[in-house]
Amino acid sequence: MDFRGTDLISIADLSKEAIYEVLDVAREMTPIARGEMMDERLKGKVLATLFFEPSTRTRLSFESATQRLGGRVLSFGMPEATSITKGETLADTVRMVEAYSDILVLRHPQEGAARLAAEFSEKPVINAGDGAGQHPTQTLLDLFTIWDEKEVIEGIRVVLLGDLKYGRTVHSLAYALALLGAELTLVAPPTLQMPREIVDLVRELGREPKQVEDPREAIKDADVLYVTRIQKERFPDPQEYLKVAGSYRIDLPLLRDGRKDLIIMHPLPRVKEIAPEVDRTPHALYFRQAFNGVPVRMALLSLILGA
Amino acid sequence: MDFRGTDLISIADLSKEAIYEVLDVAREMTPIARGEMMDERLKGKVLATLFFEPSTRTRLSFESATQRLGGRVLSFGMPEATSITKGETLADTVRMVEAYSDILVLRHPQEGAARLAAEFSEKPVINAGDGAGQHPTQTLLDLFTIWDEKEVIEGIRVVLLGDLKYGRTVHSLAYALALLGAELTLVAPPTLQMPREIVDLVRELGREPKQVEDPREAIKDADVLYVTRIQKERFPDPQEYLKVAGSYRIDLPLLRDGRKDLIIMHPLPRVKEIAPEVDRTPHALYFRQAFNGVPVRMALLSLILGA
Amino acid sequence: MDFRGTDLISIADLSKEAIYEVLDVAREMTPIARGEMMDERLKGKVLATLFFEPSTRTRLSFESATQRLGGRVLSFGMPEATSITKGETLADTVRMVEAYSDILVLRHPQEGAARLAAEFSEKPVINAGDGAGQHPTQTLLDLFTIWDEKEVIEGIRVVLLGDLKYGRTVHSLAYALALLGAELTLVAPPTLQMPREIVDLVRELGREPKQVEDPREAIKDADVLYVTRIQKERFPDPQEYLKVAGSYRIDLPLLRDGRKDLIIMHPLPRVKEIAPEVDRTPHALYFRQAFNGVPVRMALLSLILGA
Repeated sequence: MDFRGTDLISIADLSKEAIYEVLDVAREMTPIARGEMMDERLKGKVLATLFFEPSTRTRLSFESATQRLGGRVLSFGMPEATSITKGETLADTVRMVEAYSDILVLRHPQEGAARLAAEFSEKPVINAGDGAGQHPTQTLLDLFTIWDEKEVIEGIRVVLLGDLKYGRTVHSLAYALALLGAELTLVAPPTLQMPREIVDLVRELGREPKQVEDPREAIKDADVLYVTRIQKERFPDPQEYLKVAGSYRIDLPLLRDGRKDLIIMHPLPRVKEIAPEVDRTPHALYFRQAFNGVPVRMALLSLILGA
Repeated sequence: MDFRGTDLISIADLSKEAIYEVLDVAREMTPIARGEMMDERLKGKVLATLFFEPSTRTRLSFESATQRLGGRVLSFGMPEATSITKGETLADTVRMVEAYSDILVLRHPQEGAARLAAEFSEKPVINAGDGAGQHPTQTLLDLFTIWDEKEVIEGIRVVLLGDLKYGRTVHSLAYALALLGAELTLVAPPTLQMPREIVDLVRELGREPKQVEDPREAIKDADVLYVTRIQKERFPDPQEYLKVAGSYRIDLPLLRDGRKDLIIMHPLPRVKEIAPEVDRTPHALYFRQAFNGVPVRMALLSLILGA
Repeated sequence: MDFRGTDLISIADLSKEAIYEVLDVAREMTPIARGEMMDERLKGKVLATLFFEPSTRTRLSFESATQRLGGRVLSFGMPEATSITKGETLADTVRMVEAYSDILVLRHPQEGAARLAAEFSEKPVINAGDGAGQHPTQTLLDLFTIWDEKEVIEGIRVVLLGDLKYGRTVHSLAYALALLGAELTLVAPPTLQMPREIVDLVRELGREPKQVEDPREAIKDADVLYVTRIQKERFPDPQEYLKVAGSYRIDLPLLRDGRKDLIIMHPLPRVKEIAPEVDRTPHALYFRQAFNGVPVRMALLSLILGA
């Protein structure tokens, strides 16, 4: 796929081949992301981050990716975002910022904002999360983490656990994993199940996700356990929340039944979904996963800017 | 004029020749501002932006200008500005920031702040707007936009339309256009007319501005239509505001009577002064105008830092 | 001392020799800090500033130091710090930020935060102030200022004046000056005396600090007068505050009794502790002191990153 000058709005914009192309380049970028190798392929390029809501991990990893490749960053963030946009349309803000930069990274609380921005901008737009919509670079770094660790994605058994209803991350990931041929197991409390349309999408790709209620049973032969936060606000009854949060918490006893080479992922920040004692086990891959945001974003910037 | 090490506080600090020198250098800078050419003449230089009120367009274009020329940016902005200056004088804040940088760009809500800062700073200070006072780089980018499009400024017919009383931008621009020999037409509601002292200043430069009330009549043979925002807060009676805002709104029917090569400018952000359908016409120059902030600021930084 | 890869949490982490090593390198860095010489030894390196409370002087001087040496900066500051850490532990935040950078600079309102961060981070951590705890780079720039001006520290007579009880800066400085053999005179109102444990620490280093109540008497044969802010909030009775603030204010009449080569220092921002007329005397070294934050931080970054 020729990425030059293209927008990245949804993971569905990318074919299987295009995804693997990103992963391949991301692997090449890893030593540069670690600061072990120098590369200035983005020298002279300016990336603008346009964050209408804070997302520190995403912003910092885009900035680190740009800077490690010799490029420059313009930050347009909160609270300016709120004040400038009093009365200014998103289309006008985007056309201002694109005048000062070569590529835009947009984070916005409303679904569809990134697609709208891309329509008005002549410069490429990368969606860094738009409300309940898409966050394709998160999906790519999740895929890269699995692929980098397991060498393949096809046939890999992935458990998605936690709030599968409101967790935007797991929707795109479920689709992409199905596209790449992974086997999915879904583990969620009854009120936080994966939405029907996502399950249908997975099925259309020829995959039948297993639905399991007991985490212990689910992780038994899993290769990857992907944990998401269960937010208190989702439960009208605090007692109900405590019960659910407790039974979906990942700790050492639970892991005893799992495989030796099980890897645990989490988009972070976590609250109490994973016990701190798990951090010291070889299962814990969530900090590496956060780091992987850098080489993956380097790969995208490099491909899109044709550098 | 030898710009090296000088402050830029008011457009009146610059002679006609000095202004054209900036415009000439700005034109050379345009391909670098677009990212089509590389130039590192500000390598090793540090620009500090000191913004005591937000002004995203101004800040981002200074930062883009610096970074495209290989320099670095230190940002001192809101909300830090409010917290650090609790009890600290502007003079002390300026002497702190100059210790860390080669040039200061100051935005401040109070008139005279930039002049004061320049007195205390040994490093050059550029005024990026001080309350009801001056904003010379805005004036220069406005002049550059006209000159770059029309090839001359002398004899060009410019209509200034909207709130001419409180709009700081149009005061300096009226002066500078008169200095460079343009013909001015002023179009404003009765309560928002251009202040007497500005009109007198224009007359002292040998120019007699036309004053017209009907926008349609004013733009008939205009080369440039410069629109400013009419703010609701200026009207005690909301009905009165709606009436005025309506009759000063620029839309396609209004433009039918204008020249084919009329260009429309606006310092942005706009609210409803210009209908979005105008964006797609060749008249619309306001986004290019925003972009022109970059080459003009590049020119100034380059001249002042002697790079 | 081999600084490569080490944390800097407390000034007590450094031996006398290590301190002088930093000062020596800082002197070499001075022309680079002034922008008179170019040096890119931090090219490809990324410094992350993690400020959980604002401290503009400290942040800007770290950023200037990094950028003057060709490195890049990632800023993680307020108000993001408050929002992201809702529920996220400092340990997790630190492990996120270290994934994107080569070195972390942490400012935190709680004592012990820097030590904790260093335990979790594999990348070096520099403490930029943790509550009532340490702020070693401030101490080093204070020492550098004295040494750079007086050529020695041993035997130099230093008066510490103002709020010696709550002023974190003077605690570490008193210790470090005693370690390097300076003679200390402490001048503070009865309720704001230097804490007993700091005085004991100085004595253990073989130094007996003089305690004087009258500023006039104290500065008579001083080489250095180090002034700190006396905060209104420390006094239950506003009358008492006014009396104390008045008698500890440094002005020209007070200086008449001092030595010709007395230097006056202040960590800034000042409020009314030093009269503005003093700024124009050769005694005033506080703005140079602020500047010295840059070469000192350059020296540390250079030593720790082995560049």
